[in-house]
Amino acid sequence: MTPGAAPSPSPGSLADPLSPVIAVDCNGADLGPAEVAAGAVLAAEQGARVLLFGPAAQLGELPDTIEVVDAPVSIAKAQDPVSAARTTPQASIVLAARAVGEGRAQALVCAGATGAALAAGTFNIKRARGIYRPALAIPLPVPHHPVTLLDVGANADCRREHIVQFAFMGAALASTVLDVQRPRVGLLSNGEESQRGSALVLEAHAALAEQAVDGIDVFEFVGNVEGGDVMSGAADVIVTDGFTGNIALKLMESVSQTMLGAVREAAMSSTRAKLGGALLRPALRGFRDEIDPEASGGAYLLGLRRLGVVPHGRFTRAGFAQAILRAERGARADIVGRTHQALEQAGALKRSPVSAAGASLPSTG
Amino acid sequence: MTPGAAPSPSPGSLADPLSPVIAVDCNGADLGPAEVAAGAVLAAEQGARVLLFGPAAQLGELPDTIEVVDAPVSIAKAQDPVSAARTTPQASIVLAARAVGEGRAQALVCAGATGAALAAGTFNIKRARGIYRPALAIPLPVPHHPVTLLDVGANADCRREHIVQFAFMGAALASTVLDVQRPRVGLLSNGEESQRGSALVLEAHAALAEQAVDGIDVFEFVGNVEGGDVMSGAADVIVTDGFTGNIALKLMESVSQTMLGAVREAAMSSTRAKLGGALLRPALRGFRDEIDPEASGGAYLLGLRRLGVVPHGRFTRAGFAQAILRAERGARADIVGRTHQALEQAGALKRSPVSAAGASLPSTG
Repeated sequence: MTPGAAPSPSPGSLADPLSPVIAVDCNGADLGPAEVAAGAVLAAEQGARVLLFGPAAQLGELPDTIEVVDAPVSIAKAQDPVSAARTTPQASIVLAARAVGEGRAQALVCAGATGAALAAGTFNIKRARGIYRPALAIPLPVPHHPVTLLDVGANADCRREHIVQFAFMGAALASTVLDVQRPRVGLLSNGEESQRGSALVLEAHAALAEQAVDGIDVFEFVGNVEGGDVMSGAADVIVTDGFTGNIALKLMESVSQTMLGAVREAAMSSTRAKLGGALLRPALRGFRDEIDPEASGGAYLLGLRRLGVVPHGRFTRAGFAQAILRAERGARADIVGRTHQALEQAGALKRSPVSAAGASLPSTG
Repeated sequence: MTPGAAPSPSPGSLADPLSPVIAVDCNGADLGPAEVAAGAVLAAEQGARVLLFGPAAQLGELPDTIEVVDAPVSIAKAQDPVSAARTTPQASIVLAARAVGEGRAQALVCAGATGAALAAGTFNIKRARGIYRPALAIPLPVPHHPVTLLDVGANADCRREHIVQFAFMGAALASTVLDVQRPRVGLLSNGEESQRGSALVLEAHAALAEQAVDGIDVFEFVGNVEGGDVMSGAADVIVTDGFTGNIALKLMESVSQTMLGAVREAAMSSTRAKLGGALLRPALRGFRDEIDPEASGGAYLLGLRRLGVVPHGRFTRAGFAQAILRAERGARADIVGRTHQALEQAGALKRSPVSAAGASLPSTG
């Protein structure tokens, strides 16, 4: 953990001067940059050290403990985020990622723009040593037991060794940031039996099962899990390729929204139903709190030299504060170092190609 | 349409003696064989000609119009349905499929056991000429607009040409059995843009777009659809590989069950909530009817020489009757012949490999 050239907190701040600094991009939130800044204030009140990037004039009144870098340019809505992240060095998300890459902050939080965060993070924070591919992980708001799914879209086509690394990356996230001890990791498939699945899943299953025989202690491999097991809590972490994971995530979101919408619509359809809905509402509140996506901070960008968190653009300040606090927790627990160590022990790090002269070449993933 | 050696209906039956005969396997239903037989009675009352296979002693009182073949052996719960279908010629599902293969019936209905139906159908009805792979299609109970998803599990690994055929097969199902005129076909992907997707999706997209340029008139290709579009009615038919489709289907089922379960649980949690639930229930009934999976008959087995329908094992007699009536509708409309014709016009039929001497070799899929 290198605190780097982080700004010192003002006297009287709750923040520990040695605690990690979180670089926060304020652009990309549906409710505007001030909502993200308000989330940063909430997080700072709980001791987080925050370095804000965004349109300073729009961020509202902020305490002295929060340093602001005026960065009004946003690429959150860019059609082609990869190209925008390359060609817009003054974009707030690029500046925030660069602050992390240069050691002025120890984790990145940027609202809304997953594609831009992935691109800006990969270009400026860089892949961690020995990692094939960064991945996006999302703690699904499953009642009673959060389940982390990855990859949810960074890599449409994956190889076996990518899936194996996702298992370690997801397990490290679950144990450091999401309070799950020795997470149970499942492999998403079209059947529970080990011989069921696509060619990729069969290979990944064999590789993960072999890790289990070798006695990995950072997670338990519970084998294949089906689509129907995602909600059942059969696993704490579910690994899959980014194509399947992205479809699964968006499908879950739209099915649950459709169902809640239908209940809401039914509860507006007659006087009798309105009364019923009003009486039922308090009882449903507990369930809605349990499936509140803001509670777990959003999506996590794993596999870079520092942790990234991408809260959903529609989050409120409470969700942005969660994202910042969880980013800090991940940085404090050295999630990146832990992942590296576990992968190294498992012999699952990517080896850099070695030239004839023995020099390391840059790896290209 | 060859009525074959179908049994003549008794005098006074509503059934047209030239109408297709539906072979129905009664084993595999959660409520037992008598529930399937009761569904057959309902279908017969609407004019269907049914040939029942199952434990005759357990089927209850049946009208003379329904012919029964005593077939007490069930492989519906077999661990390995492929091997069971091969080695159990006396199984009711095998006998029913053989009746279809031999022309004594023109479509197959078997409850519950998708794997066994796929195996028994493939062995005994055989793949239709020019089809690479049979597929399982399921009309999803989406409110306001049923959406047919395929493949939902017959083929874990697919190639481009399989996906293209699925589009034609699904479109033929939608237009003949599900009352959709010129169905809109979408390709499930992790992004709407044509350049988003796995390598397979990029290839399949290009092939389907090319078909569209050539002016196919049996469906409209609407491009990629995301997981979030499945519920939105952006497409009437959504094609994907059987790995992704199976995960998507089971995920949708479990998310909607979890949501309904949570509402039910909330509505039992206090006296006030119970009253609310009771008042809201009638308004929710319309929604529940709309998402009733029994209404569309179950899963459809496409790509064989005859249509197969696999109603869910938990269906009641109403669902089994639907399955039989829709199987009949597909047979009457010659869904298999229509699919063949459309694939032929599109140049998308599988060509039999030709030996040096010009003789056709059996194709092996």
